[in-house]
Amino acid sequence: MRGAILYGARDVRFDEVATPSIQKPTDAVIRLAVTCVCGSDLWPYRGIQPITGPTAMGHEYCGVVEEVGSAVRSVEPGQFVIGSFATSDNTCPHCRHGYQSSCVEREFVLGAQAPVLRVPHADGTLVPTPGMPSNDLLPSLLTISDVLGTGWFAADAAGVKPGSTVAVVGDGAVGLLGVLSAREMGAERIIAMSRHEVRQKLAREFGATDIVTERGDEGVARIKELTKGIGADAVLECVGTQESMWQAIRATRPGGGVGYVGVPHAVALDGAALFFTHVRLHGGPAPVRRYLPELIDRVWNRKIDPGKVFDLRLPLSEVAEGYRAMDERRAIKALLRP
Amino acid sequence: MRGAILYGARDVRFDEVATPSIQKPTDAVIRLAVTCVCGSDLWPYRGIQPITGPTAMGHEYCGVVEEVGSAVRSVEPGQFVIGSFATSDNTCPHCRHGYQSSCVEREFVLGAQAPVLRVPHADGTLVPTPGMPSNDLLPSLLTISDVLGTGWFAADAAGVKPGSTVAVVGDGAVGLLGVLSAREMGAERIIAMSRHEVRQKLAREFGATDIVTERGDEGVARIKELTKGIGADAVLECVGTQESMWQAIRATRPGGGVGYVGVPHAVALDGAALFFTHVRLHGGPAPVRRYLPELIDRVWNRKIDPGKVFDLRLPLSEVAEGYRAMDERRAIKALLRP
Repeated sequence: MRGAILYGARDVRFDEVATPSIQKPTDAVIRLAVTCVCGSDLWPYRGIQPITGPTAMGHEYCGVVEEVGSAVRSVEPGQFVIGSFATSDNTCPHCRHGYQSSCVEREFVLGAQAPVLRVPHADGTLVPTPGMPSNDLLPSLLTISDVLGTGWFAADAAGVKPGSTVAVVGDGAVGLLGVLSAREMGAERIIAMSRHEVRQKLAREFGATDIVTERGDEGVARIKELTKGIGADAVLECVGTQESMWQAIRATRPGGGVGYVGVPHAVALDGAALFFTHVRLHGGPAPVRRYLPELIDRVWNRKIDPGKVFDLRLPLSEVAEGYRAMDERRAIKALLRP
Repeated sequence: MRGAILYGARDVRFDEVATPSIQKPTDAVIRLAVTCVCGSDLWPYRGIQPITGPTAMGHEYCGVVEEVGSAVRSVEPGQFVIGSFATSDNTCPHCRHGYQSSCVEREFVLGAQAPVLRVPHADGTLVPTPGMPSNDLLPSLLTISDVLGTGWFAADAAGVKPGSTVAVVGDGAVGLLGVLSAREMGAERIIAMSRHEVRQKLAREFGATDIVTERGDEGVARIKELTKGIGADAVLECVGTQESMWQAIRATRPGGGVGYVGVPHAVALDGAALFFTHVRLHGGPAPVRRYLPELIDRVWNRKIDPGKVFDLRLPLSEVAEGYRAMDERRAIKALLRP
C-alpha cells in the first residue's frame, strides 16, 4: 500500500510502505475510513522537531476493524472503531485514574496517514461506535481521535465549569475545538484569540462570544479589560511556545486554571513568576481514551459538529498538499480520504 | 520599642524602631502575644534574597487589638486576633474566589518580630478567636498565621483527599504542618522526606506513615517503590529549590497534584518535561485568610497541636539566636516572646 512518509523538512511523500498486519495477540488492524494531518505534524514537517530517518506520519484515525489478534476481546472485525493517538491497556493504575495517555504500555500511533493501520493494545485503545456511521459523520468522528479529545482535555484541565469565563490561546483545530468543548461544558463567556478571519468565524460558530486579535502583552491586557481587570477563570493553551504559554498564564485570574495541550517547544517557566500568579497548571498529552465514549455519543447524536474544522478535503495521495496548505495557514485542517 | 532589624547577611539585631500607630482608617494596631522566625526569613538572612537597606523582619503574628482606625468594623480593641502574612480587603474578586493573598490591596506584613504591629486592611485580614486564649494555645494559634496556613494550602493545592497517598518534600515547619494538614484532610498514607531524626519524629507525631531519607533521583525512586511504581496522588513541595521542585513533580503520579509553597529561588521548569509528567501544579503565597476560621476552630478545640513545631523558645530580645539556630538547623522553628 502507499502512505505518507516524511523524509526531511517539508519533504512528505505518498510512498510505498508495508501493509500492516497483526504482530502481537493484542493488536488490531483497521481499514481507515478517513485520516488527516495534525497541527503537531507540522513541527517535524518544518524541521523544528528532528526526525532520525524516513518517518511514517499520522496518528488520527477511525475505520473498520479488519483483523484482531488472538487476545483481543472487546472489538471484532466489521466494527467501526475510534482510538486515541496514544495507545493504552486501560487497566494499569494510570489508566484507572483516567490518564490513559500515560499508560505504562503507551505507544504513540504512527503511520495513520495510510489506508490500513495496526493499533496495539486494541482492547484498551479502541471504542466501537453504536453502528456503521453515515459518511457525513466521518469527519466529526475522526476529530475525536485527537483534536477534539485534546481540546476537550484542555478545557477539562483548565477547570471549565458552567458559568466560567474562558480564554483560548491558539486558533488551530485544537484551539477551535477547545472553544466548542468549553461551550459544551457550560462556559458563559468564551474569548477566542485569533487574527484570522476564517478561524474567527468558526470560533464564533463553535461558541466564542468574544474575539481578541491582539497577542502577547496587548492580548493579555485586552483579556483583562474584557474581564473587568480580573482575568479569565480558565485558559486553554493550544500552541506550545514560550509566548503562548505566558500569554495563557497571565490572562488567568489568581486561582484560575491553564489547561495546556500544545506540545511545549523551548518553553521554560520561571518558578517564582509562576508562583506569584497563583495559577493552576495542568496539561500534557490528552487522555483521549477517557473521553471517547462521551464524545462518540455527542457526535453520533449530532449534538456537536467538530468536523467543521476540516476546511480542506483531499484524496490521501495528495497528502503533501495537505501539509503545504496547513503549513502556509491556507487550511485549518486537511481531511484525507484513503 | 525594639524589634528585629536585618542589616545584612547574618546580621539581625534587636534594635530601636518606631512604635507603630494607626496610619489609615482601615488599620489596626495589635500587641503581639507571641511571634517567631519563619523559614522564609532565612533567604534574606543568608543573603540569597537581597535587601535594599535595614529591613524590619517578621510576618507571623497574633495578639490583642490595641487600637483600630475609624473605618474598621469587624474587630475592636481588646479582642485576640490572628491575621495572615498577606493583608487583604476580603471583598475584591480575587478574595471572593478564595485567593486573598492575591488581593488587589495586598501588602506583605513586615515588622512582626516586635511587641506591636500595624496591620493594614484590618477588616479583611484579621479574624478574632472565640475568646482570650490560654497561654498554652498561643504557639498553635501563631502557626495559623503562616506555617500552618501554608502547609494547609500546600495540601489543598495538591488535591489531598480522603484516602490519598501523599508525599511531603521539605521537613521545615511548613513541611511538617503539611503532614498534619494531609492527615486532617484524610490522607491514608503520608510519606515525609527527611533525614533529620528530630523532624522525622515530629512528622510521625503529625501523621506521617513512612519516612524517606533519600533525596533527588534516589528519593523519587524510593517513593515510586513505596507506591508500587505509581507515584503519590499528591505531593507537597515546601522548599523552593530546583531540586526539590523536580523531586516533587517526579514523585507524583500522572494526574496527581503538586502543591508548591516554598517560594521558588532560581527555579526554571522545562515545559516539555512538565507536559509529559501529566502533573497538576498549583501553588503560590498561601491564601491563609481563607483558612483562618477553620484552622482557629481546630486549634481552639484542641483537635490539632501545630505549635509543636516550636522547639526553641526565646525572649524576643534574643531574636538573633533564633535566626542562628534555624540557619544551622539546630531548631525547627523559634518562638519569640515580646
